[in-house]
Amino acid sequence: MEFVVDLGRSSYQVTVGCGLLTAIGRLARDAGLSPNRCALVTDANVGRLYADVVLQSLRREGFDAALIEIAPGEPSKSFPVLQTIYQRLADAELDRESTVFALGGGVVGDLAGFAAATYLRGIALVQVPTSMIAQVDSALGGKTGVNLKDAKNLIGAFYQPRLVIADVDTLESLPEREFREGLAEVIKYGAIMDEGFLDWLEREMQLILERHPERLVSMVERSLRHKAAVVSRDEREEGLRKILNFGHTLGHALEASTSYGNYLHGEAVAIGMASAARLSTKYQGLKVEEAERLCQLLEAMGLMTVLPPGWLSTEFIRALRLDKKRRGDKVEFVLLDRLGHAVTHKLTFDQIIAGAEAPLN
Amino acid sequence: MEFVVDLGRSSYQVTVGCGLLTAIGRLARDAGLSPNRCALVTDANVGRLYADVVLQSLRREGFDAALIEIAPGEPSKSFPVLQTIYQRLADAELDRESTVFALGGGVVGDLAGFAAATYLRGIALVQVPTSMIAQVDSALGGKTGVNLKDAKNLIGAFYQPRLVIADVDTLESLPEREFREGLAEVIKYGAIMDEGFLDWLEREMQLILERHPERLVSMVERSLRHKAAVVSRDEREEGLRKILNFGHTLGHALEASTSYGNYLHGEAVAIGMASAARLSTKYQGLKVEEAERLCQLLEAMGLMTVLPPGWLSTEFIRALRLDKKRRGDKVEFVLLDRLGHAVTHKLTFDQIIAGAEAPLN
Repeated sequence: MEFVVDLGRSSYQVTVGCGLLTAIGRLARDAGLSPNRCALVTDANVGRLYADVVLQSLRREGFDAALIEIAPGEPSKSFPVLQTIYQRLADAELDRESTVFALGGGVVGDLAGFAAATYLRGIALVQVPTSMIAQVDSALGGKTGVNLKDAKNLIGAFYQPRLVIADVDTLESLPEREFREGLAEVIKYGAIMDEGFLDWLEREMQLILERHPERLVSMVERSLRHKAAVVSRDEREEGLRKILNFGHTLGHALEASTSYGNYLHGEAVAIGMASAARLSTKYQGLKVEEAERLCQLLEAMGLMTVLPPGWLSTEFIRALRLDKKRRGDKVEFVLLDRLGHAVTHKLTFDQIIAGAEAPLN
Repeated sequence: MEFVVDLGRSSYQVTVGCGLLTAIGRLARDAGLSPNRCALVTDANVGRLYADVVLQSLRREGFDAALIEIAPGEPSKSFPVLQTIYQRLADAELDRESTVFALGGGVVGDLAGFAAATYLRGIALVQVPTSMIAQVDSALGGKTGVNLKDAKNLIGAFYQPRLVIADVDTLESLPEREFREGLAEVIKYGAIMDEGFLDWLEREMQLILERHPERLVSMVERSLRHKAAVVSRDEREEGLRKILNFGHTLGHALEASTSYGNYLHGEAVAIGMASAARLSTKYQGLKVEEAERLCQLLEAMGLMTVLPPGWLSTEFIRALRLDKKRRGDKVEFVLLDRLGHAVTHKLTFDQIIAGAEAPLN
């Protein structure tokens, strides 16, 4: 199935389904991209599985793609790797009519997206997310970036892709832990804007965890439609879009304070959402049983909901202070006033820290 | 005097005059920027002369500015220096409501502009150009960038400032050569869109070369108004804006092939414009006497108009092929069909090379 992210002149199409990797060339041509020199950026793991089929699909439609493989994992989201990508784009003589295809998870999408946003001041970008978290979240919306040492996504750009292609077949090969972390972002959409989605997830849980293709298509589509609705009303996160950061302030701080070594992003976000739910009962009138329901769903999906012993480290506080949503001594924190509805609320660092692990009753 | 660059939601004000450095804080507040943590990026030469007065002006209005000084010169437009700037912005805890003030010439404006465009996915930017070439050209229009090794501005972003403040008093301290290179860009506006401006420049030449403040204000204002008119109709160089590249294709190749060591940017552009005028007589019907008039004005301003012996090197051709305006095997070249009117014309590399130094009759 297909739908359009409505951003005026920057609108683009999203396609979710099975067996789409072989159709990438055709979808790119249909979107008006010039068959020309282009680049396929991927990581070594994803590349081993899918680069050939994508290169063939591109070649059939006249796209002459240079393959750029990076090492898998967050450390690649760095300036040295970014500069290598730039050099490879230049060596392949990509010009302003060329396209970068980003095939992979969040790291590839963010990094290749930032490279496309800044090479020759911006060339066309196609996101082909292959991880759960990229398919339901990061591939859509135009956030691109690199890390500056310990500061995740400190550097970046808002840059919309020309096309998003989510093939749920690629989710089959994901390790269990990476599959489940992505469910945190799925549950997030339910928590902040669609209580009915939470009902559906509770009901379909078993088939989802078994990776039933049809359920995955429904789940990815519903997630991306929610994200598209938010992004199209607030492309640059000046207002509404902030609600998508639900669970992310504490989640990011937890990731950063553990040097991104202990938690996958979605795992940290799950803990962040549970903590934000606790804060919501204190500051925004969320019912205790609603917070409990959210935590139970997260746990049923195999995600943690409590901060680990020793979480309140110097590094945690430093990371919190570097949060992009900081405004002076407060953070614009996303809370729920009920399941299915989020609001932002300025909280001091002290309020956040005190409330993040307060018991729910 | 003041005028507005009309870019819808991204519109911004341009102020040109004398004695403006002491008014920067007030102008920034009037433009709605939050007095907050901010950064003043400059180079060591400009900083020595003007950083104190700007810092004081900012402080008076409540802007708490971290001073970030880079080494003067093109080599600073590099990734290592960019990363240093990012780190300094993070250390100073700049947040999304902070502003970067870029005080200096083209290098500072491009580099600090790119840093502002990409720090936290974009924070406010104020351009305070102090060189001639930055005042009449690069500070307005939103082009920001860094060099990737020998590829000038290969990496960059379109990112509009919130305010441009051109204080012609800062032109007094410029070395003669840097003053004159800026006149190449001034003459360009006349050549591509305002023949009357060429008349005025020919008439007022003596007072301009003596740096008469009132003439400089008129000249900078008229230049920036022309640039603003073009940019507001084509922010991202998809059409009309390309005419601003008149003289730049060959100029860039000449700079790159001499490792940016022999020519100042404006000097190379002057030679590029003279060569483009020769090509214009061949491909676009420009009259020989018009091409001669343009060359005479450039020479009278102390600029060269002929390619140096040995210009057609391997490096020159490589640089030409890396040109951002390349489309496959052709370059979208800017030519004149008459003085005061430019058009784009696709030329092959062979046509460009053969016609660039052909005699004018």
